[in-house]
Amino acid sequence: MEMSYVLDTLFALFAMTLIIFMVPGFAMLEAGLVRTKNVTTVLTTNIMIYAVASMSFLLVGYTLAFGAWENESMSIYAVFLFQMAFVGKTVNIMSGGVSERTRIVPLAFFTVIMAALIYPLVVNVTWGANLLSGTLFDISAMHDLAGCTVIHSTGAWALLAAILIIGPRKGRYGKDGRIRVIPASNIPLIVLGALLLWIGWFGFNGGSVGSIASKDKADLVALTIMNTNTGGLAGAIIVGIIMYVQYKRFDITMILNGALGGLVSVTAGADVFDMYAPIYVGAIGGAIVVYGVTMFDKLKLDDPVGALSVHLLNGIWGTIAVALFADVAMWDQVKGVLVVGVFAFSASFTVMYIINKVSPFRAANDEQQQGLDIEECGLEAYPEFRRSI
Amino acid sequence: MEMSYVLDTLFALFAMTLIIFMVPGFAMLEAGLVRTKNVTTVLTTNIMIYAVASMSFLLVGYTLAFGAWENESMSIYAVFLFQMAFVGKTVNIMSGGVSERTRIVPLAFFTVIMAALIYPLVVNVTWGANLLSGTLFDISAMHDLAGCTVIHSTGAWALLAAILIIGPRKGRYGKDGRIRVIPASNIPLIVLGALLLWIGWFGFNGGSVGSIASKDKADLVALTIMNTNTGGLAGAIIVGIIMYVQYKRFDITMILNGALGGLVSVTAGADVFDMYAPIYVGAIGGAIVVYGVTMFDKLKLDDPVGALSVHLLNGIWGTIAVALFADVAMWDQVKGVLVVGVFAFSASFTVMYIINKVSPFRAANDEQQQGLDIEECGLEAYPEFRRSI
Amino acid sequence: MEMSYVLDTLFALFAMTLIIFMVPGFAMLEAGLVRTKNVTTVLTTNIMIYAVASMSFLLVGYTLAFGAWENESMSIYAVFLFQMAFVGKTVNIMSGGVSERTRIVPLAFFTVIMAALIYPLVVNVTWGANLLSGTLFDISAMHDLAGCTVIHSTGAWALLAAILIIGPRKGRYGKDGRIRVIPASNIPLIVLGALLLWIGWFGFNGGSVGSIASKDKADLVALTIMNTNTGGLAGAIIVGIIMYVQYKRFDITMILNGALGGLVSVTAGADVFDMYAPIYVGAIGGAIVVYGVTMFDKLKLDDPVGALSVHLLNGIWGTIAVALFADVAMWDQVKGVLVVGVFAFSASFTVMYIINKVSPFRAANDEQQQGLDIEECGLEAYPEFRRSI
Repeated sequence: MEMSYVLDTLFALFAMTLIIFMVPGFAMLEAGLVRTKNVTTVLTTNIMIYAVASMSFLLVGYTLAFGAWENESMSIYAVFLFQMAFVGKTVNIMSGGVSERTRIVPLAFFTVIMAALIYPLVVNVTWGANLLSGTLFDISAMHDLAGCTVIHSTGAWALLAAILIIGPRKGRYGKDGRIRVIPASNIPLIVLGALLLWIGWFGFNGGSVGSIASKDKADLVALTIMNTNTGGLAGAIIVGIIMYVQYKRFDITMILNGALGGLVSVTAGADVFDMYAPIYVGAIGGAIVVYGVTMFDKLKLDDPVGALSVHLLNGIWGTIAVALFADVAMWDQVKGVLVVGVFAFSASFTVMYIINKVSPFRAANDEQQQGLDIEECGLEAYPEFRRSI
Repeated sequence: MEMSYVLDTLFALFAMTLIIFMVPGFAMLEAGLVRTKNVTTVLTTNIMIYAVASMSFLLVGYTLAFGAWENESMSIYAVFLFQMAFVGKTVNIMSGGVSERTRIVPLAFFTVIMAALIYPLVVNVTWGANLLSGTLFDISAMHDLAGCTVIHSTGAWALLAAILIIGPRKGRYGKDGRIRVIPASNIPLIVLGALLLWIGWFGFNGGSVGSIASKDKADLVALTIMNTNTGGLAGAIIVGIIMYVQYKRFDITMILNGALGGLVSVTAGADVFDMYAPIYVGAIGGAIVVYGVTMFDKLKLDDPVGALSVHLLNGIWGTIAVALFADVAMWDQVKGVLVVGVFAFSASFTVMYIINKVSPFRAANDEQQQGLDIEECGLEAYPEFRRSI
Repeated sequence: MEMSYVLDTLFALFAMTLIIFMVPGFAMLEAGLVRTKNVTTVLTTNIMIYAVASMSFLLVGYTLAFGAWENESMSIYAVFLFQMAFVGKTVNIMSGGVSERTRIVPLAFFTVIMAALIYPLVVNVTWGANLLSGTLFDISAMHDLAGCTVIHSTGAWALLAAILIIGPRKGRYGKDGRIRVIPASNIPLIVLGALLLWIGWFGFNGGSVGSIASKDKADLVALTIMNTNTGGLAGAIIVGIIMYVQYKRFDITMILNGALGGLVSVTAGADVFDMYAPIYVGAIGGAIVVYGVTMFDKLKLDDPVGALSVHLLNGIWGTIAVALFADVAMWDQVKGVLVVGVFAFSASFTVMYIINKVSPFRAANDEQQQGLDIEECGLEAYPEFRRSI
C-alpha cells in the first residue's frame, strides 16, 4: 500500500516533468513558425500562459474541477502538479492559432478565465466531480484518456472563437482571393519544439493511466506510451508520403503537424487500443491535418500554426476513433464531443467578446506591419541579424 | 529496506538528470543574452565549466565535502551524481555575470579551485562532514534545502569578486554617466534556457529532500516540487505586472529573470513552506530582481545576465524567508548567510586575484570590440548571418 | 516480484525517454554543423529517420532481433520502447556523416532496410535470439553493454559504405589538394544538440543494465551512469587541452566531438569499469577524435560531423577497452568487432549500391551549390536572415 503510494507519486512527478517540457515545446514551435518580427511576442505569450494559467488553476481551477484537495492513492501535490501541467495547454492551442496579430494583455485576461473556470468546468463533468451527474448532459461515460476532447478540442474551440473575433493577419487573404504564403522564420526551432511536444506526450498519455504500481498497470502504462508514439510515427509518415506524391518535396512543417495530429488522434484511446490500431488512427490523423489546413484556409480562418487541424479536427477524430477501434460506445463519444464543443465554444466566445470590448485582442494594422515585438515587448527577437524581408 | 534503497537511487538519478538539463539551460540562456560576437565564447565557457567542475569534484571535491564514499540509504554513485550535478552551477552563476569580457583559461583555473575547494568547504560546513562543528561559526543549523545560500549565494559572491577584479564591459558605462543598453541577441534561446533551468529546479529542490521512499517523504517531495514551481510562477507574474504598469511593455528577459529570482527565493524553504507561502516569497523574489538590476547598474557593477539580482539578492532573501514563513530560527539563517558570504567572497577574491596575476581574466579592449569569439575560440557563432550592428 | 516488475518497467520507460531526447539531440547537432542552405534537409532527414526506423522496427525488426514478444521481468511494451529508441541511432550516425549532399528518398529506403533487417540481425547475434549460436562466428560472448559495436560501429560502418558510394561534398577537396574548411552555421544548436545527446546517454547506458530492482542492480545502474558521464567529461577535457596547446584556441565543435567520443568509448564497458577507468578510456577516446578527423580528411572521406571518428574509431576502441580495463577476454571483443564490422559494412554497401541504382543518393552538383533545402524540402531554414556567404 505505502509502496504503491510512493511509486504512483514518483510516476506522476515523472509524467508531470515530461509534460512541462511541452512549455518550451510550444514556445519553440511557435517561435519558429511566425515571422521574426513577432517572435518575442509569441514567446512572451507562452511564458505568460504558463505562469497565469498555472497560478489560476492553483488558486481556483483545481478546486472547481476536482473538489477537495484529497487523494489516497498518491500525494495530492503530485496529483495537482500533473493536472496543472495540462491546463496551460488549452490556452497554448488557442494562442498559437491567433499569433502574429494578437495582443498579450487581453490574452492574459482570457487565460485567467480559461484556467480558473472554462477548462475546470470541462474537467469537472468529464474526469472530475461531475456537476452534470444524473442529467441528460452527463458525459462522464466518454472514454477520453488524456484529453483528446477535454484538452485539445476545448483549446481548439476557443481558438475558433478567437479567430472569429480577431480575424486574419493583415494581408493574409488578398482582395483578389489569393492567399499570401507567409514562410516560417526558423525551422530548427520548429523541429525542436515539435519533438519536445512529442516527448511531453509520453507523460501526458502515460501519466493519465493514473497508476503504475501493479503488473497490470505497468503493462498498461507502457502500452499507452508505445501507442502514443506509434500514433505520432504514423502521422509523420503518412504526411511525408502525401507531400512527396503531391509535390515531390518534403515540407517539414507539414510533416511535423502530421506527427502532432497523429499524437492528438491517439490521445483519447491509447490505453484501450491494441498495438496496431494507432497505425491506422494516427495515419488518418496525419492525413486530416494536410486536408484540414487547406480547408481552413479556404474558409479564411487564418491559423498560422495549423492548430485547428491538429487539435480540433483530430480532437474530434481521436475521440470518435476510440469507438471504432476499441470496445467503447459510439454515442458516449459523440455526446462528449458535442457537449464539450458547445460549451467550450460558446463560453470562450462570450468571454472573449466581453474582453475584446475592454481590451481589444487585435493589434492595429500598422502594428502588425511593423511586427508586434516593438509595441508589445520593446525587444526584437534577433536584433543583430539583418533581415532580407 | 532494499526496496527503499532502489526507490531512492532511482529518484536521485531522476533528479540528477533534471539538474543536468540546467547545463544546456545556462548555456542557452547566456548565449541568448550576449551579443552574437561573444556567443561561442560563452558556450565554450559553459561546456568547460561542466567538464572541469565535475571532474574536479570527482577527484577532490566530493571527498572534501562529505568524507568517505559511503551511503546506506541509496547508491553512493547516485549520491555522487546528484551532488556533482550541483557543483558547476556555482561557477555558471559567476561566469554568466562576467560574460562578454572574460577569457576562458583563467576561468578554467578558477573552476578547478571552486569545485575542488571553495564550494566543497561550504558544503562541508552546511550539509556535509562539518569541520566547524562545535565552533562559534557552526552554521549547520541553517535550513537551506537545496542551496539558496550554499549554491546561489556562493556562486554570486564569487561573481561579485569577479566583477570587482574584471571590471565592466568596454563601453558599458559612458564617461558622461550614461549606461549603454546592450540588447540580447537571441530571445528564443533565452526562453529555452530559462525553461530548462526551471525544469531542472524540480530535480534540484525535489531531489534535495533526499528520499521519496515512504508516504511522508513522497508527500514532502511532491510539495517541494509544487512549491518550487509556485515560486517561479509568482516571480514571473509580479515582474510581468511591474513591467506593464511601468512601461506598458513586457520585457521578456526581465520576466524570465523574475521567474528565476522566484525559483531561487524558494530554494531554501520549499520543503517547509505551506503551499501558499511561495506565492509571497516568489513574488518578492521577482520584485527584488527588477529593482536589483537597476541598483547594480547604478553601482556600475556590470552583470549582463542579472545574476547578482537573481542569485545574490534572492539567495539572501530566500534564506531569510525560511525564518519568516516557517518555524525556523532567524539567527541560524542570518548566521549562515553571513559566514558563507564572508568565506565565499574572500576566498573567491583571493583566488581570482592570484589567478589574475598569472593569466588575466579580462580580454583586451580591442578584443572586446571585435568580440571574444575569434580570439578565444576561432569560430563565429553564426558566420553566415549578416549583422546589422 | 510484482514490485520488481513495476520498478523495472518504470526504469525502462525513464531510460527510453532520455534516449528519445537524442532525437532532437542529433537533429540540433547536425542542423548547427551544416551550412544554412542545407539545414532544413538535415532536419527533415532526422525526423524521417525517427519515424521510418521506429515503424520498421515495430513491424519487422524487433521480432527479427528478439523473437517472440514476451518478457517476464518487465512490460514487453517497455522492452520494445527501450529497444526502439536505439534503432534510429544507427541511421542517424550514418546520415549525419553524408549530410550536405544526400537526398532524402534513398535515405528513407535505406532506413527501412537498416531498421528492419541489418541492425536487427546484428542485435540478434549479440543481445538477442542468436542465430549464430554454436557456429564459429558466435559473438554473443562480446561484452558490449549498450552498443559500442552493436550500434555505434554498425552505424559508422554503414556511414563508411555511404561515403564511398556518395563521395565528398562538391568543392570540399580542391584539385590542388587543398581541403576547403566549411564552417558550422549555428554554434548554439551544436551545443544544445551535443548536451541532449549526453543526457540521452544516461538512459542508453544506464537502461542497458536491464534492471534497477535490487540493491546490487541499483548500484550497478548508478555506477554505469556515473562512468558514462565521466567518459564524456574526460573526452571534453582532453580535447580542450589539445586545442589550447596546439592552437591557443578552444574549438567548441571539436571539444564536443571529444565529449561524444568519450561517451562512445565507455558505452561497451561502463558497467564493468571501476570509477577511474572511464577517465583513461574517455580521454583516449577524445584524443582519437582529434587525430581521426584529420586522418579521414587526408583520406578524402568527407564527413561533415566527424561521425567516423566519434562512432567508428571509438566504437572499436571502446569495445577493445573493456578487455583492457575489466576482466573480459580480448578475443571475444576483437571477434565481435570483426564479425559485426564485416557484416555491417558489406550488408550496408550492398543495399546502398542497389538503392543508388534506383534512386541516387547524391544530389547534383548545382543542387549542392544552391543548397539542398529548396529542391528537397521547398523551405529555407532561415528565410528572413540575409546571408553574408
